Amino acid sequence: MSTASTPSPTPASELDPIFKPKSVAIVGATPRKGSIGHTVLHNIMASDFAGIVYPVHPSAPFIHSIKTYPNVSVIPDPVDLAVIIVPWKHVTAIAEECGRKGVRGLIVISAGFREIGPEGARREEDLLAVVRKYSMRMIGPNCLGVINAAPEVSLNATFAPTRSIDGKIAFLSQSGAFGVSIMQQMEWRRIGLSYFVSIGNSADVKANELLAYWENDPNVEVIATYMESFGDPRAFFCIAKRTSKHKPILIVKAGRTEAGRRAASSHTGALSGADVTTDAFLRQCGAIRVSTIEEMMALLMAFSRAPLPKGKRVAVLTNSGGPGIMATDALVTSGLEMAELSEQTIQKVREIVPAEATVNNPIDLTAWGGPEAYRTILPWLCQDPNIDIVLALFVPPLMVPPADVARAIAEAQRGYEKPILGVVMAEDSSYRNLPKEVPNCPPIYPFPEMAVKACAAMVYHCEWRRRPEGEIPHFDVRTDDARAILQPYLAQGGGYLPTVECMRILECYGLPTAPLIETQGPDEALAAAHKLGYPVAFKVAGRKIIHKSDVGGIVLNITNDLELQGAYAQIKRAMERAGLDPDEEAGVVQRMAKPGREVILGMAVDPKMGPAIVFGQGGRYVEVLKDITTWMPPLSNVDTDELIRSIRSYPLLAGVRGEESVAMDYLRECILRFSQLVMELPEIAEMDLNPFILNPHPADCTVVDVRIRVERGD
Amino acid sequence: MSTASTPSPTPASELDPIFKPKSVAIVGATPRKGSIGHTVLHNIMASDFAGIVYPVHPSAPFIHSIKTYPNVSVIPDPVDLAVIIVPWKHVTAIAEECGRKGVRGLIVISAGFREIGPEGARREEDLLAVVRKYSMRMIGPNCLGVINAAPEVSLNATFAPTRSIDGKIAFLSQSGAFGVSIMQQMEWRRIGLSYFVSIGNSADVKANELLAYWENDPNVEVIATYMESFGDPRAFFCIAKRTSKHKPILIVKAGRTEAGRRAASSHTGALSGADVTTDAFLRQCGAIRVSTIEEMMALLMAFSRAPLPKGKRVAVLTNSGGPGIMATDALVTSGLEMAELSEQTIQKVREIVPAEATVNNPIDLTAWGGPEAYRTILPWLCQDPNIDIVLALFVPPLMVPPADVARAIAEAQRGYEKPILGVVMAEDSSYRNLPKEVPNCPPIYPFPEMAVKACAAMVYHCEWRRRPEGEIPHFDVRTDDARAILQPYLAQGGGYLPTVECMRILECYGLPTAPLIETQGPDEALAAAHKLGYPVAFKVAGRKIIHKSDVGGIVLNITNDLELQGAYAQIKRAMERAGLDPDEEAGVVQRMAKPGREVILGMAVDPKMGPAIVFGQGGRYVEVLKDITTWMPPLSNVDTDELIRSIRSYPLLAGVRGEESVAMDYLRECILRFSQLVMELPEIAEMDLNPFILNPHPADCTVVDVRIRVERGD
Repeated sequence: MSTASTPSPTPASELDPIFKPKSVAIVGATPRKGSIGHTVLHNIMASDFAGIVYPVHPSAPFIHSIKTYPNVSVIPDPVDLAVIIVPWKHVTAIAEECGRKGVRGLIVISAGFREIGPEGARREEDLLAVVRKYSMRMIGPNCLGVINAAPEVSLNATFAPTRSIDGKIAFLSQSGAFGVSIMQQMEWRRIGLSYFVSIGNSADVKANELLAYWENDPNVEVIATYMESFGDPRAFFCIAKRTSKHKPILIVKAGRTEAGRRAASSHTGALSGADVTTDAFLRQCGAIRVSTIEEMMALLMAFSRAPLPKGKRVAVLTNSGGPGIMATDALVTSGLEMAELSEQTIQKVREIVPAEATVNNPIDLTAWGGPEAYRTILPWLCQDPNIDIVLALFVPPLMVPPADVARAIAEAQRGYEKPILGVVMAEDSSYRNLPKEVPNCPPIYPFPEMAVKACAAMVYHCEWRRRPEGEIPHFDVRTDDARAILQPYLAQGGGYLPTVECMRILECYGLPTAPLIETQGPDEALAAAHKLGYPVAFKVAGRKIIHKSDVGGIVLNITNDLELQGAYAQIKRAMERAGLDPDEEAGVVQRMAKPGREVILGMAVDPKMGPAIVFGQGGRYVEVLKDITTWMPPLSNVDTDELIRSIRSYPLLAGVRGEESVAMDYLRECILRFSQLVMELPEIAEMDLNPFILNPHPADCTVVDVRIRVERGD
Repeated sequence: MSTASTPSPTPASELDPIFKPKSVAIVGATPRKGSIGHTVLHNIMASDFAGIVYPVHPSAPFIHSIKTYPNVSVIPDPVDLAVIIVPWKHVTAIAEECGRKGVRGLIVISAGFREIGPEGARREEDLLAVVRKYSMRMIGPNCLGVINAAPEVSLNATFAPTRSIDGKIAFLSQSGAFGVSIMQQMEWRRIGLSYFVSIGNSADVKANELLAYWENDPNVEVIATYMESFGDPRAFFCIAKRTSKHKPILIVKAGRTEAGRRAASSHTGALSGADVTTDAFLRQCGAIRVSTIEEMMALLMAFSRAPLPKGKRVAVLTNSGGPGIMATDALVTSGLEMAELSEQTIQKVREIVPAEATVNNPIDLTAWGGPEAYRTILPWLCQDPNIDIVLALFVPPLMVPPADVARAIAEAQRGYEKPILGVVMAEDSSYRNLPKEVPNCPPIYPFPEMAVKACAAMVYHCEWRRRPEGEIPHFDVRTDDARAILQPYLAQGGGYLPTVECMRILECYGLPTAPLIETQGPDEALAAAHKLGYPVAFKVAGRKIIHKSDVGGIVLNITNDLELQGAYAQIKRAMERAGLDPDEEAGVVQRMAKPGREVILGMAVDPKMGPAIVFGQGGRYVEVLKDITTWMPPLSNVDTDELIRSIRSYPLLAGVRGEESVAMDYLRECILRFSQLVMELPEIAEMDLNPFILNPHPADCTVVDVRIRVERGD
């Protein structure tokens, strides 16, 4: 019953029956023009599918001049793929029939499942059970369909109104309407697709599986996605991180803000993670986050039509000062560099331009610069070893058709492996069709800013490719001891650990803690202070007080017995004010740490994205200063370097104005140990080391306070 | 000789001969099609100018069927305006001839003046001298020309290839090419112009004069500009601040970055100010800074086609989840609010939509939502008092022509004084011409983000209109005493003042300083410490050491004579290390201030923009923390409030986590006194009060260190 997949350089995959079928049944094809059932059939025919189509309709003898079958069972030949476009109440029964028939792949376009609420979700479960029972694979339900433009397949099983252009971009959309819009935009700009997949509710086939499917497909050079949630973020992360090392992955991740997330969740039932976590997630797997459809188009044009740059030095050629300035502003703001033109280039250009031209970067040809000037100068810029990217701006003056310059820019690209991005400030219809006429036509934009965004994304991608993998060291730690400490708190159902226990957990992982003793009553406190030696701090130990300093639950710099007695009285009052029983609640005596730079090292579990590590300026005012960076564990040594450098106040750690740097190697090690702790103790739902005091010598670096909350996994 | 200006509600102006001429000579008109001289004449004819045109050409008897004159002198009638399009070497002579003839206005399109270097600049001086001699007014040289679309004038004296659409927007461009591009963009989007002025080198008529000319012109409802430099920023500021209270002013200010500024200066010879200063400048005069042409178009569409909103609560109506989420993200990120729909609206909508629709904000109609749904629901949203702005998003599904929905959105607007902004995610050619067909057609955008930018700009403008003017208090201070202190340093040619003198200046303005005594040698230091009382600080007083702490030139918290002697030795060594003679250099003994929050209050003179006041987190790490806000003096009380609140660490001043606020009223007063000082002592080129220590009680607020540099004005 199984069908031989088409010859393909990639190994056979369970998804082949969906993307490389030799025969397709359209269940729900109708003769009514404009209906979804008719459009899907029409699109399959119009794309000249390299296989056989079987329309299925209860009564019509033929549709679109093709013989029609009343149901799937009676089709006399094997069927690889069924596209289902019937009302939801029939879908599961038809899937069952397909399974019995030996169909291997389903595309369920029908809506009325998880997206409409609990009842639909149950319906979706039933459908999925049938799919699993017959070992089928399914795209959807509630989707727009799929396209595979490979010539040996040539399948357009969507109801999109657009005819796509063949190319090397695979596009994955979690929103059908968004997908239609993207396809239209791509068609207008002549950006070519190899795959388009609207995954709908993704009950069975999910985004990460498609990424894996495309990872080694030579027909896919760029992957673009619109995502509202990641499904299994860990799986997505691993595949994306691997794939992005050789193919750019562009992601529009919707639901940035709290309100946007509410809109996202009301839409798909998928609660996405906090946005900074998503940013960290995408940054660490090398994906390029894109904010708008327009930006997506700008980047797709660049990645599909321009070679990758070797570096980030950009030369700007313009015939008008204003746009040259605006491009320069945008380039520098995006972290790119203005190239220093070579002496040779400057001389050659100077020889041909009039006196009023500026032979600098930007090169401003002034109104003198026409198509011929661009055709002459652009190759020189391509040859200049000081330049990595060329931005060619043109404002069409009187009597110069914009298409002429667009063509001159396009022709200059030929023979050079250096990206040229064109900006022709005229209606884009004047050069939209150039890619049809000029081979290897570079991307051309109507405004400088989008071209600059594209440059920046290309540079970002190249830097990511070059970035060393890094290593995740393994430290020899006492995981079992740490687990044993957590155990009783987990057994109680979770909650905050007392400070003493928190410190013991850190000690199990070799993190530096200020020595401390838990005490009950004033006498024990005095004994502890004598044992540790003055100066000491005295704090409430309780698990109920989270921000001890807010309730006056901390006294610092106690230098003698008298002061300690005073502190005891103060803490006791604080406990009473906080509604705690001072006789039950313990106090903690801690040796005072040497003052230094205060950082925070923390972790919180995002319900969707998993644990995220936070590092930044610490102390009482973390929330006010907001000088924080977020990263997904496990961290490599390369991640850790970038993490430390990415906070605003990094210069304070590295030493400014003649000061010594804090113990940087030691800090790195502590962060890597912390990352290992986070990975090995998933029962910890939240953890803050704050302040973690840093000094030039490792022996003077100490975690002064810590809180840990555990949660029982289910 | 003077001509009567056209009847106009605005008072007669010197600029009327340029913008409201009854007769125009085109000096340099040519019969050659495609030349600038021919195009200008053609554009004047094509715009159906309400006056007489006299082409001037040395030999051609007629051009464009119009009798031609060999020079201006022989024109038998009075001429109001001459447009000059001849090679630069003839321009001044022709201007002289025009002056003798009694011409009142010149538009000099010819290039070859200041923009090409020193020689051109001299040429421009000569031309300007002629203009002044005959009391003429001039636009240019090196410009594209002007348009005044008012029906009683109907003048298009430009060589732009575009036909503009009549409207209520006045556009001013410092770049000709940029102007052309803008005009084309406006034409495609059917955004109407009342004035277009390319001011070129603005040798005579400058941007601020045009702003003033448009301030009360009823034909101008929106002012848009592309600026590379402000000319006289103070004049621009005053006029813009007044005008922006009733007309939005949109500004593309190019040259944001250092590199962009270099590009700008190589282009026009105008060095623009640092970008933060420009931001402060524009914010305080109520102008709306725009980054790209595309954004400019988005905002112009909104301001010219939608009524202003009453508040910032936005309702989103969509037929597709994805774009709804993206719009929500963009709205919230821009500081707008998602409206809470009224119960009534929710009920009405719920009655007509299918079960899968989300009746929330965004209202997601899903694929069910067609033109009819928009036509029905949009008026309900217009009626809902909880909504200030309506954003109607539409992704055209199969078989719905985008224009139908665009039309439905356009029609819903009628009869409501609430802005609706449409987003139709389809090729914009499908609805571009709607404004021709539908009266009061609202703005329609191809993507949600630009619509959101437009919403945000409208809200910003409305909030600016409502913002109280504020008052600039005058404090009774000792300005003359302060001047007397500065005098000797100015007489020496400028430089840094010693700390003692700096403190005296602050005292003249009633700013709080920590008491201090300048001392020579250890005995004087001891005497001073006894007089002030311990604890004291001891510092180098010298004017050469700017960052005293960098060279170890400060010792704090000295509590007794012995420590002071130690400090003296230390400071002496620091002086020697810094290459100062300890016998000549004085020390300063200062009473220790009570510790508190450290802020910086500073001022620096920007070469183009004038003095700017800086306020922010103070102390040693100002440069690292970069928590700074910049404002232009003089500050009003309203400015000062906003200034204090605009730094990131404002919560630390206001008191977080149970702490007391610093003396806020007193801080405000100090900042206002400082602003007065800055305005009254323009000889001060730079001034830093850092740290200025703040505490809950005014008596505990003290400026601990200050440096002042004076410069002789020329």
